[in-house]
Amino acid sequence: MARIALDAMGGDLAPTATIAGALLALQELAPEHGIQLVGRPDVIRAELDAQLAEASAAVREQAARLTIVEAADVIEMTDKPSVAIRGKPNSSMAVGLRLQVEGHSDAFVSAGNTGAQMAASAFILRLHEGLTRPAIGTLIPSARIPVVMLDAGANVDCSAAELVQFARLGAVYAEDVLGRPNPAVALLSVGEEPEKGNAAVKEAHKTLAASPGLNFIGNVEGRDVPMGACDRGAVDVVVCDGFVGNVLLKFYESVPKLIFGLLAKSGVSKEQLTGALKGLDYAAHGGAPLLGVKGVSIICHGKSSPEAIKNGILVGLRAVQSRMSDHIGQRLATSAEGASA
Amino acid sequence: MARIALDAMGGDLAPTATIAGALLALQELAPEHGIQLVGRPDVIRAELDAQLAEASAAVREQAARLTIVEAADVIEMTDKPSVAIRGKPNSSMAVGLRLQVEGHSDAFVSAGNTGAQMAASAFILRLHEGLTRPAIGTLIPSARIPVVMLDAGANVDCSAAELVQFARLGAVYAEDVLGRPNPAVALLSVGEEPEKGNAAVKEAHKTLAASPGLNFIGNVEGRDVPMGACDRGAVDVVVCDGFVGNVLLKFYESVPKLIFGLLAKSGVSKEQLTGALKGLDYAAHGGAPLLGVKGVSIICHGKSSPEAIKNGILVGLRAVQSRMSDHIGQRLATSAEGASA
Repeated sequence: MARIALDAMGGDLAPTATIAGALLALQELAPEHGIQLVGRPDVIRAELDAQLAEASAAVREQAARLTIVEAADVIEMTDKPSVAIRGKPNSSMAVGLRLQVEGHSDAFVSAGNTGAQMAASAFILRLHEGLTRPAIGTLIPSARIPVVMLDAGANVDCSAAELVQFARLGAVYAEDVLGRPNPAVALLSVGEEPEKGNAAVKEAHKTLAASPGLNFIGNVEGRDVPMGACDRGAVDVVVCDGFVGNVLLKFYESVPKLIFGLLAKSGVSKEQLTGALKGLDYAAHGGAPLLGVKGVSIICHGKSSPEAIKNGILVGLRAVQSRMSDHIGQRLATSAEGASA
Repeated sequence: MARIALDAMGGDLAPTATIAGALLALQELAPEHGIQLVGRPDVIRAELDAQLAEASAAVREQAARLTIVEAADVIEMTDKPSVAIRGKPNSSMAVGLRLQVEGHSDAFVSAGNTGAQMAASAFILRLHEGLTRPAIGTLIPSARIPVVMLDAGANVDCSAAELVQFARLGAVYAEDVLGRPNPAVALLSVGEEPEKGNAAVKEAHKTLAASPGLNFIGNVEGRDVPMGACDRGAVDVVVCDGFVGNVLLKFYESVPKLIFGLLAKSGVSKEQLTGALKGLDYAAHGGAPLLGVKGVSIICHGKSSPEAIKNGILVGLRAVQSRMSDHIGQRLATSAEGASA
């Protein structure tokens, strides 16, 4: 039985999209799981009633697995991250994360202010031992199956040691949430050879190549990311700093738009295109876990649709069921022992 | 009248593709321009004869504007950059570049070892005053018109001062070779706000915002690159370090392959696709000038087709005709005066 807390107030399309997403998720979640809608009760109640009035009897019945948790404040998209910690201690984010610490919830999902969610998650849930920062692990659609890329924007200046931490975090994520045993972890660089890369990447490569308990397959290049594979085989996890990850992810976001524009001129029908490009829509792959915190905090895109919110909730559930956070703690402890032995 | 030296021996498909590219270029170059094929005369002669034997009378006539310049050595794709300077002083690269210094040629084009071409260009042609490094300026296809991105891989670790240099180099390139007056120059970052970015980007932003004589429009994000525009309007030049540039460029390279795979399943015909995606083929946009050297050195992709080689030659000619290298020197001198005034 898992209880997933959803930031009902978070995101550009909240609370309409968040509540619609929760209702969609209930249709896919096994009946023992429930969703906690965190936010202003009056706002949530009104929106929920409006949506349920038009819903089927089955959906109205599933809604019994929703609970409303009061949070008086809302973090705005323009608020500074520190506001989430000090300025608004009763925001839906802070309240939703505290539920987990107090043992009343198992995961937190939000499409709100990403910087604030990161700060609040690290402050309230705390980081696992051995980490200096949390990282955002995002799924990137590829020609094969989606690839985990991290960090996707939390950390713009990264040391080699942090890249190594990301590799460990990404491996657990891929194994636990995506169900890929012994995932292939690669370092994003400008060439396959170990001596290619910037200073941090070259140093991280050395450490990773000597790391036990990690299926490190070496460097991959930008071209390998959308393929989900390199010359040496499949790639499950791509490690990079948050600057590169953010640029790449946002670049990827606009590629379908570009392709649409190009193909529209060629007489290809819109239906054919939409179907074909659906796999490129990374929002469809759900939220991105904030990796490294002691608990589950799922970051969704600010413009998340109900479908994307639903997927975020499902990712949260998989993280809970696989005990991802515990495994991260264990792996970090093991690697610290290996290093000191 | 311009004389373009082509590294006949450079690239994975040389000399077949290089010589075929030269013949294609002659069909588009005004009759006063000539091409110098630099390399092993016997190899060049044999390949040229074979291609001319199957060519039309018009092409055979145009071939009179080809000259062969002897170079005994060849830089292999696996050679270290230093080989180009010290190990093989009579390579087709070194000879082709020296032609320019000695006043016998106006531009050099190669699809050979990029690292070697950079090193040899900087060593033989020298850098303009005020620069610490040259940069590779690449055209990225966009939904609008191609965008200049630099650095595209020459410099993996960049200081803020170097990013500022790239902005100046890119502006001259866009103006001279692409014919865009007062080009809009943007800094690639993780957010539009000046305070977003890694340490080097944030510092570069401050300097660029205070730089006269540069149409600096602020930060752009990854999503703006394939659009060729941001919320504030068109973007002509995107500045980033060579690590980010290389990753992005290679990522872009494989997107058409990904799209092909996705669309093939949807029943879209191969012909429709090929036509539509042609605009995404960045090789079609020709070679990338190595910016900052005193002269013209055009870097082509190692797997350049004859069409790509031809385009590289045409880019070289535009750089010569617009006097791009002189303008770079003048602009750098002006900005140094401005800074010391």
